[in-house]
Amino acid sequence: MGTPVTTRSLHDRLKHSINRTALRSYLAEFISTFLFVFVVIGSIMSSRELLPDVTNASDPSCLVAVALANAFALSSAVYIFGASSPDNKSATSSSGAHVNPAVTFGLAVGGHISIPTAIFYWIMQLIAASMACLLLRVATADHVVPTHAIAVEMTGFGASILEGVTTFTLVYTIYAARDARKGPLSAIGPLAIGLVAGGNVLATGPFSGGSMNPACSFGSALVNGSFKNQAVYWVGPLIGGAIAGLVYDNVVFPFTVEHSAAD
Amino acid sequence: MGTPVTTRSLHDRLKHSINRTALRSYLAEFISTFLFVFVVIGSIMSSRELLPDVTNASDPSCLVAVALANAFALSSAVYIFGASSPDNKSATSSSGAHVNPAVTFGLAVGGHISIPTAIFYWIMQLIAASMACLLLRVATADHVVPTHAIAVEMTGFGASILEGVTTFTLVYTIYAARDARKGPLSAIGPLAIGLVAGGNVLATGPFSGGSMNPACSFGSALVNGSFKNQAVYWVGPLIGGAIAGLVYDNVVFPFTVEHSAAD
Amino acid sequence: MGTPVTTRSLHDRLKHSINRTALRSYLAEFISTFLFVFVVIGSIMSSRELLPDVTNASDPSCLVAVALANAFALSSAVYIFGASSPDNKSATSSSGAHVNPAVTFGLAVGGHISIPTAIFYWIMQLIAASMACLLLRVATADHVVPTHAIAVEMTGFGASILEGVTTFTLVYTIYAARDARKGPLSAIGPLAIGLVAGGNVLATGPFSGGSMNPACSFGSALVNGSFKNQAVYWVGPLIGGAIAGLVYDNVVFPFTVEHSAAD
Amino acid sequence: MGTPVTTRSLHDRLKHSINRTALRSYLAEFISTFLFVFVVIGSIMSSRELLPDVTNASDPSCLVAVALANAFALSSAVYIFGASSPDNKSATSSSGAHVNPAVTFGLAVGGHISIPTAIFYWIMQLIAASMACLLLRVATADHVVPTHAIAVEMTGFGASILEGVTTFTLVYTIYAARDARKGPLSAIGPLAIGLVAGGNVLATGPFSGGSMNPACSFGSALVNGSFKNQAVYWVGPLIGGAIAGLVYDNVVFPFTVEHSAAD
Repeated sequence: MGTPVTTRSLHDRLKHSINRTALRSYLAEFISTFLFVFVVIGSIMSSRELLPDVTNASDPSCLVAVALANAFALSSAVYIFGASSPDNKSATSSSGAHVNPAVTFGLAVGGHISIPTAIFYWIMQLIAASMACLLLRVATADHVVPTHAIAVEMTGFGASILEGVTTFTLVYTIYAARDARKGPLSAIGPLAIGLVAGGNVLATGPFSGGSMNPACSFGSALVNGSFKNQAVYWVGPLIGGAIAGLVYDNVVFPFTVEHSAAD
Repeated sequence: MGTPVTTRSLHDRLKHSINRTALRSYLAEFISTFLFVFVVIGSIMSSRELLPDVTNASDPSCLVAVALANAFALSSAVYIFGASSPDNKSATSSSGAHVNPAVTFGLAVGGHISIPTAIFYWIMQLIAASMACLLLRVATADHVVPTHAIAVEMTGFGASILEGVTTFTLVYTIYAARDARKGPLSAIGPLAIGLVAGGNVLATGPFSGGSMNPACSFGSALVNGSFKNQAVYWVGPLIGGAIAGLVYDNVVFPFTVEHSAAD
Repeated sequence: MGTPVTTRSLHDRLKHSINRTALRSYLAEFISTFLFVFVVIGSIMSSRELLPDVTNASDPSCLVAVALANAFALSSAVYIFGASSPDNKSATSSSGAHVNPAVTFGLAVGGHISIPTAIFYWIMQLIAASMACLLLRVATADHVVPTHAIAVEMTGFGASILEGVTTFTLVYTIYAARDARKGPLSAIGPLAIGLVAGGNVLATGPFSGGSMNPACSFGSALVNGSFKNQAVYWVGPLIGGAIAGLVYDNVVFPFTVEHSAAD
Repeated sequence: MGTPVTTRSLHDRLKHSINRTALRSYLAEFISTFLFVFVVIGSIMSSRELLPDVTNASDPSCLVAVALANAFALSSAVYIFGASSPDNKSATSSSGAHVNPAVTFGLAVGGHISIPTAIFYWIMQLIAASMACLLLRVATADHVVPTHAIAVEMTGFGASILEGVTTFTLVYTIYAARDARKGPLSAIGPLAIGLVAGGNVLATGPFSGGSMNPACSFGSALVNGSFKNQAVYWVGPLIGGAIAGLVYDNVVFPFTVEHSAAD
């Protein structure tokens, strides 16, 4: 009576990842990621545009602007995503958009989405981020699209550590918001996810750039034409996101029986 | 037994849009729009008043102030609107106020409100926005009411693109918040709508003005006496809002059977 | 079988306002008002303390700080108040603390609390506000407690208009948050109330002071020793609050049968 | 049939505090506290890094940045904590993480957690805070980790008063958020807790440091190597937190029968 789920071939898995519902979730992911990257990179451009002195790279009110942009955009981007994921039967879920390859990776490591689906999400995220940055550059008459950067006195390793730790807390919060055991608190899940991102930018912005998002860093680097320190924004977040998923599911809040039903 | 709903004449539709419940929803829309425009335009006036140097048009903390004003005021304005819309039987709905002709247009394109009702909403929005700006001017002893403006180096086309994209994400979020399939997440709908507006202002404020709202731009231009670049704040938002409605309803989250019941 | 409710004597009404449950709600109101005034007046003192140049009265980031303080403190103060009001049988209600004589007045005009209860609330609010300001002065080694002030170019009438309009939207939002017909949206009522207060401060702070609260203005004036323009902070808010209650209950969302049950 | 609950020996209580579920809650507390302290101390370091003039200790936009970091981080840290506490049978509770010895003390005084459990929480909080500060110092190439400090013109007693009052309102809000009688409002409990913390920082930051958290002050002092005024951040918060718990439970909202069931 058909292939059992546990021994699905690559072909079956691909079929599972390419159907009408799955394609819709990829489009929804594209829109959410576009919104997020547009607001985050746009806020960096906007706050720099307003600085009286061009040589002065930044000031604390720029940090506030960019942190609020991260918090507001991530909350909204997670909120508007409501399509059924290809690995999830329910029409709408509070799990929200990933908008972030590190989040997708962290969920794949925990077994919450399949590898082919994760790859399609990554592709959508990278395309959406690049298009958001390109549109910002074209619409603003070729203003420079800023890239995430690390402070001159810091090492790439130190920056990777900061990006890894902040992505850990971000993905950990996403796991908590997806957790069906949250009860009434699940209503504010998208807000909690946005707030932890905003807090992390406030803590690490001037040191490591406060990205936590390889797609956002990739898109701005592609349009800017400079991939300096790009590795920092992939290595740190991917490792941090993966560890967060493993710690949440296996150590802190292990599921027993209700696992398959709850998620 | 009476005209079927699908073949209602213009006369019937008008009667549907002018009754006690409908008039109440227009008044509620007036109050919400007044609140929103008062806070948004007032925050621009306030933050300029506080700048030490008058020649300095703005600085990043002004951007933060105006973005927070947008987020706070739109969340509140959407929240306080609870009258039954003339196209909606339930006494209270989480759909909230439009406070924005582009939102009304986006909902009309998707068939969620009728054309006559939309026209009455537009009239209310334009009057409320103009009165809010007039009151700010009179009460502050003839301070200049600022208009939305685009950066000197930008083209009107580029600004229209930015206004169109940001209005797209705003109306898309409003569709998501109205979606009955959101479940417990519908409780924070007004917050998500406010946050996406605040994020968009942070991203585009110094470039295109960050209006997303033709009524707000119209009211301030009327009281200021300058309609320069007014087209930017109508063309971009109306197109962006309409596309958002069509994409949400038809491409990303098409309803099947439960459409008429859910909305 | 006892006096009917509609013809209760003053003596009965007083007995109704002085019992164990009522006394608890007065204490809860004291704590909420203390929290609110402490944070709002403290934030004005703190942001001035940080300005590099003492002659410079304010700057836009001070406006942001004080607006956020209003939003955060009012949301929290409303949230923590959960005692049964003496006019309300349910043990906890989402109606929240008033922390503001104008709100109490607006609710009394609408008949939602009795006159003796309103008087006890006013007394609690004025004492709590005065003690919060006194504590700030003593603990900070006699720093000046700032009073709400209007811009030099403005008239007292203009400032009263601004205070009246902003208090109107504040009390209107409080009525909306108390409305049992809000359904799931009632969960975010305290946040909506805080956000409208924060937005109003952003819009009117440098012009009329952005008080909306006679108790807050009274307490700071008492400890500061200057009652200049105090009338502005009583006349505007009281009229605005009363109109908001009448408009909400009678014009926009009139109750029919479920009135007595819902509130 | 076993020792009755009321006469449990120390040995029984310890066994109750050291089992698999309890150990998980300590780990969850560690993660929440780490997140909170990392963001709060990191935001102080970040906003100082961005000041153009190093001799200028702070400015109002730094205050906004640190207050938002407190609000965002505390909301998130409370939200993500969902393990069953060793004194609580339900798998998830809305009570959230303490991340703060003063909160743990305030809950222990009210009898909501046992003494041995409270001690393990304290240990976790102090280790997590110290590790967060150490990581910030190492990853940023030995930037100075700032300690909470009081204004030069203030006395230690005045600062203790401010820290005590702000911790009182924080712990009072936490009691309110834990209160099962809050109904639908319990959904936004973590937000209310974060907002009161952010408001308190806005009010007292430049005067007493705005800590409200002995673990945060201890960790930064340990890594910085200076324990100046450390007593201020223990005496004030512990007394304020204990009074808050006693006032909430016994005076304002005393439970009658449903106590044991509700909490």
